[in-house]
Order: sequence, then structure tokens, then C-alpha cells
Amino acid sequence: MQVDAYIFDVFGTLVDWRKGVADEAALMFRDKSIGVDAVDFAVAWRKKYHPAMQRIRSGERSYVQLDVLHLENLEETLEEFGIAERFSADDKQALNHAWEKLPPWPDTMPGLTELKKHAIIAPCSNGSIALMARLAKFAGLPWDAIVGADIAHNYKPERETYLASCAALRLPPERVMMVAAHNNDLVAARAAGLRTGFFPRPGEHGPNQSTDLKADTHWDVVCRDVAQLAEIVAIADRI
Amino acid sequence: MQVDAYIFDVFGTLVDWRKGVADEAALMFRDKSIGVDAVDFAVAWRKKYHPAMQRIRSGERSYVQLDVLHLENLEETLEEFGIAERFSADDKQALNHAWEKLPPWPDTMPGLTELKKHAIIAPCSNGSIALMARLAKFAGLPWDAIVGADIAHNYKPERETYLASCAALRLPPERVMMVAAHNNDLVAARAAGLRTGFFPRPGEHGPNQSTDLKADTHWDVVCRDVAQLAEIVAIADRI
Repeated sequence: MQVDAYIFDVFGTLVDWRKGVADEAALMFRDKSIGVDAVDFAVAWRKKYHPAMQRIRSGERSYVQLDVLHLENLEETLEEFGIAERFSADDKQALNHAWEKLPPWPDTMPGLTELKKHAIIAPCSNGSIALMARLAKFAGLPWDAIVGADIAHNYKPERETYLASCAALRLPPERVMMVAAHNNDLVAARAAGLRTGFFPRPGEHGPNQSTDLKADTHWDVVCRDVAQLAEIVAIADRI
Repeated sequence: MQVDAYIFDVFGTLVDWRKGVADEAALMFRDKSIGVDAVDFAVAWRKKYHPAMQRIRSGERSYVQLDVLHLENLEETLEEFGIAERFSADDKQALNHAWEKLPPWPDTMPGLTELKKHAIIAPCSNGSIALMARLAKFAGLPWDAIVGADIAHNYKPERETYLASCAALRLPPERVMMVAAHNNDLVAARAAGLRTGFFPRPGEHGPNQSTDLKADTHWDVVCRDVAQLAEIVAIADRI
């Protein structure tokens, strides 16, 4: 069965959010002479990501773009670290753009560039179109389209997010492969009828990462990274 | 006032729909030994474009992607030319993909490639995300994102299409320039608060074109083509 589109999780799977956010926070902390560990700060900020989306997934709150949730979560995190009064509204907006400046893992750009020769490639992220477009510019991600939460007005792993993404590309789910370094993303994608591709990103959560170090089950493709996925697809195209 | 994103009309402005559709139709007519003029056919097919969208703009019909309207219009056009019975459902689907294989005007790809260094670039077309993604692959259009009708679930020149496109990019309308070879597109974009850029495409409608040969009013930028727009933006960035 032919796969016409590969759609990707982005944060963690393609880019290093932990380093990217910490580096941006560190710059601002240095300018303000704030003695907070920037990695701890990035991790604390990210910890609010899933609970914030859950209110929308559950229907408790209407859809808003992830940029809005990130900013609210930033405000809470600054409060927790006791440094909120050091940040103006403009400072917070500036720091919120850290999510658009995340370094790609080394294989991401070459892998996507090769894969793009063989199929449609698109992010299927919880990040907004605005965020994904700016991140793609920063990180050199050569997307054909942007699908994901902003298309569905709902967040992964809600079934609707995967199905709306396939529909936007006018492809049935079985012609689309969801690629992620997170098993739970793929559980939901498979339940929605998509094909699944996995590789681990043991650096995503730092040296003590204990989750998603390997495939939890038989995904359609399990490989080393994006570059190897592209190699596999290139070979499959020739045979 | 800084422009952070340039969003483009596509059919006519960036690609030659008339030649592209006629070429695809000609191939299929030749295979089937059908003696219909392919350019006449392309023009007749395109003539149904605005009336089909108007039913959706008026609220008479719910939003469907342009691919659906194109297919319905194709079926009507085949009937009018008396050749409908020569086309299977698969033939019609195949010919409908003609809209994804439109040649860019010569300045389009180099112009967009340069412009992309300075700002976000995206189509703001009535074509669907699916259509725009495949056309971008075919024609080498290096988009950062895809906005337009499929984001708004309504067709240009409805105000909502421009505003939803800006919102998807998280930009206020005054930081976005709509670029088109069609004055009426720009009338609507300006009314919605966007900046406006115009260049003519005297080849769009063939040798007897009488409309849109020049700017009808003082658009923010009036230039020769995409390449010149990119030059202007590059210079403005330096001064």
C-alpha cells in the first residue's frame, strides 16, 4: 500500500525543544541578571503543555492556538520561579517566540529534503500554522504543507486532529503515515487508520530520559531517524 | 510599516492555469482521439469557477474544497462539449489533477525564492491545501505556509478569507500584503485592512485579454512581476 504523505510530530521528534527554549531563556535571564537555571525553566514551562491542551481536548475550553497556551503557561512558570515582575508584556511575547527557534536534530533537514522527493511531507503538530511556518524558516524544514491542530481546531492525540489533517491533504488515512518519536502519538494515529513510523529521540528529555526509548509495539516502520526513514522510502520507491 | 508576510493569489498570478489545464486536457484528448480544442475546453471549464464558488460565498451551499467544485465543473464541461461518455470516473479524477500541474510564470520561482529570505510567503488562493501543496511540488513554489480558502472555509473575495489567513499567521492585516494580478482581489484585501501589491499578467487570458492589464488604483506596490517585487523588498530591507 502506497504512502502518499508523511506527516510528522515536531517538538521532540524533529527539533530539540529543550535546548531551543533553554537557550532563548538563558539569553533573557543573562540580560536581566536572573540566576535561574534555563533548562529547569524550559522543562517546567513544557510541563504545562499537556494539561493546557487537555482543557481544550475535553471541551472545557474552545480551541485557541498553541501560541496562546504557551504564553499563558509562560506567565504561570515565571510566577512559580518568582521572576514574573521582571518581565514586561513585550518580554513575555519575545520569550514566547522561543518555540519558533528550536534547533533541528542533525538528520532532520537532510532527511526531510530527501523524503520530499518521494511524497508530500507536512508537520502534524500541536503547534499553530504561524508557529510551524516560523519554525520551518528557522530550522530549514522544507514542508509541502502544514497540517495538525490548527487545521482540526483540536489537539493531538484527539482522533479528529489526524483525520482533519488527512482530509486537508485529500488523502484517506491509510495513505498517510504519522511519524513520531512518541509512542502515544502513534497509538492514536493508528486508531484513526493512519500508517505509523517511529524512531527514538533519546536526547529529547535530557540525560535521564526513561520514556519512548524504543517502539512499544510493531509500528509500520521503526527506524533510526528521519534520514533512515527517507532512505527506506527511496529504496521502496525503486523496487 | 513593516510587512511580515506576503500572501499570493496563485491561478493567473503565479501560474499559467490556461496553458497547464489545456496541456493536460490535450494529452487526454489525444489518447482518446477526441477532436476538441484543448484551450477552448480549459477556458470553458474555468468559466464555471466563479459561479460555483458564488453558491458557497452566498451561503446557499456549505464549504467544499475547490477540488470538488473543479470536478463538478469538469463534468458539466464534458457534457457541454458532448464528450462526457468518453470519460470514466477515473479519467475525470485524473484530468481534475490538471490544476495541480500548472506551469509557473518564469519569474515566479526565482522571485518567491528571493522574497522568502525577507518575509513569510504563502498562497492565499481559493485552491485547497491539498491542491496548493501538490501544485507547489510541481511548480517549485517554496511556500512557508498555505493559507486561503481552506483555512477560512470560504472563498475570496469574501472578507473572512483574508482575515482568517492573517489570523492563521498570527499577524494583523496591516502587516500582511496580498499580492495579485487581479484588481478585484486587491479591492477586497484592502477593504479587510491588508496591504496590496499588483503586477499584471497579460498572458493569463490569452492574446485577447482586456482586463487587469494595469493597476486600477494606487495599490501599495505596483510592479512588473514577482521578481521585481522581491527586489523592491530586498532593497527596502537594506535601507
